[in-house]
Amino acid sequence: MTGRDGGADLVPLGNTPVVILVRPQLADNIGAVARAMANGGLFHLRLVAPRDGWPQPAAWRNASGADRLLDNLTLHETVADAVKDLHHVFATCPRPRHIVKPVLSARGAAAELRAICGRDLRCGLLFGPERAGLDNDDMAQADALIRYSLNPDFMSLNLAQAVMVMAYEWWTTADQTAPRSLMTNETEVATKGTLDNFMTHLVRELDDCGFLRNAPKRSGMIRNIQHFFQRGEVTEQELRTLHGVVTELAHGRGARRAKSAP
Amino acid sequence: MTGRDGGADLVPLGNTPVVILVRPQLADNIGAVARAMANGGLFHLRLVAPRDGWPQPAAWRNASGADRLLDNLTLHETVADAVKDLHHVFATCPRPRHIVKPVLSARGAAAELRAICGRDLRCGLLFGPERAGLDNDDMAQADALIRYSLNPDFMSLNLAQAVMVMAYEWWTTADQTAPRSLMTNETEVATKGTLDNFMTHLVRELDDCGFLRNAPKRSGMIRNIQHFFQRGEVTEQELRTLHGVVTELAHGRGARRAKSAP
Repeated sequence: MTGRDGGADLVPLGNTPVVILVRPQLADNIGAVARAMANGGLFHLRLVAPRDGWPQPAAWRNASGADRLLDNLTLHETVADAVKDLHHVFATCPRPRHIVKPVLSARGAAAELRAICGRDLRCGLLFGPERAGLDNDDMAQADALIRYSLNPDFMSLNLAQAVMVMAYEWWTTADQTAPRSLMTNETEVATKGTLDNFMTHLVRELDDCGFLRNAPKRSGMIRNIQHFFQRGEVTEQELRTLHGVVTELAHGRGARRAKSAP
Repeated sequence: MTGRDGGADLVPLGNTPVVILVRPQLADNIGAVARAMANGGLFHLRLVAPRDGWPQPAAWRNASGADRLLDNLTLHETVADAVKDLHHVFATCPRPRHIVKPVLSARGAAAELRAICGRDLRCGLLFGPERAGLDNDDMAQADALIRYSLNPDFMSLNLAQAVMVMAYEWWTTADQTAPRSLMTNETEVATKGTLDNFMTHLVRELDDCGFLRNAPKRSGMIRNIQHFFQRGEVTEQELRTLHGVVTELAHGRGARRAKSAP
């Protein structure tokens, strides 16, 4: 099986955190974890004592093309063995109790993982089994715990969803996308001058057709229309379309019909 | 069926974004979406023309207790019908092309949704079908598109994972948790004075046992030990344990044995 979606790019490259699934129960979830990891740019997967053994074809079926992560994962009998070559280990832990250890948010953990990887140290993330989560011995092997910012009244988080949140945060820490931008694949945001040309055109036609005949209200009406067109970014292409709309409304079919009527 | 995990708290309360699944294909995914929504504090679900009809028992089986979301969802024939009572609609869209519309990151969208809900306006999030995503007509009904910050080389994002990321960002925008904190359920972080008491105790015992007998190196050795104990936050409880460790190592069984030897 080869990845159907960028599988060729899934070769482990560079220094990224290792995801370690501790005693995972369902092969479906292991596959979904691989897919979520690929979504967020994580490529190193380790399994500690999977309940149903390994390999399990259901994992590949559920990985949606993230096959190389599954092909290349390593199997371990104990958590100690799975983390022995790592310098830092964080353990996800939704409800830590009576444990004295630093607790990170998912976002805080992602930032620290970036910093650790930037120092060429190897780091890993422990995720516990579906039903019970990590036990106390597992957590004692971690530097810090990660507790997600999620609804405390509904803590039942699917394993692959838990990995998805960390993978998303991992990717996002290195992403520079603006929170809001305008997609303009083939056109440009209009300048105020171009927008003003359109307003001049529109007002001329509205004067001609009599819409602005009430002189005391004329400037207020124009301002209201102007406010509307200023509200969002308008593109050059949209303004060309709007010029056409105004021209056709004023001089198109209806106007021709009037001309031919006498 | 009732929620096994806080189901009683899943009654829709307050003004939160509506999740609208457009032509969803798999009941399993609808259930997983409900679970992810509950994780992130989203409670209003609408379905537009689900492929296999509704209700589907598989959805409840996969919702892990988020049953009320499924019990209370509404069915719609068209996107227009599903959004008609909303004031703002954002559409998730991994690969928008040739569309002129604002594009938000998931984080940016969550912040804007919070602001919109804060003004008592109703907003919704459109998610497309598993295979094809939203079509151009669907997207034309949205104010803005949401494009996640995720690995562009592996875009195959599961529907419930897509909802999870937005639900997580929604919850996180209102969360004040520190990126890093120390969990101290029953104990307190030690003051420098308490830590210094321990260092004094340790140095006295190391002097007594001869570990620091090399006078020229003594102050450097003490400093190295001190650096180690200063590296992370130490708790009062841990210091009490460490006092005991030092005392027992110096005067415990071994010391008694030495005493009883002569």
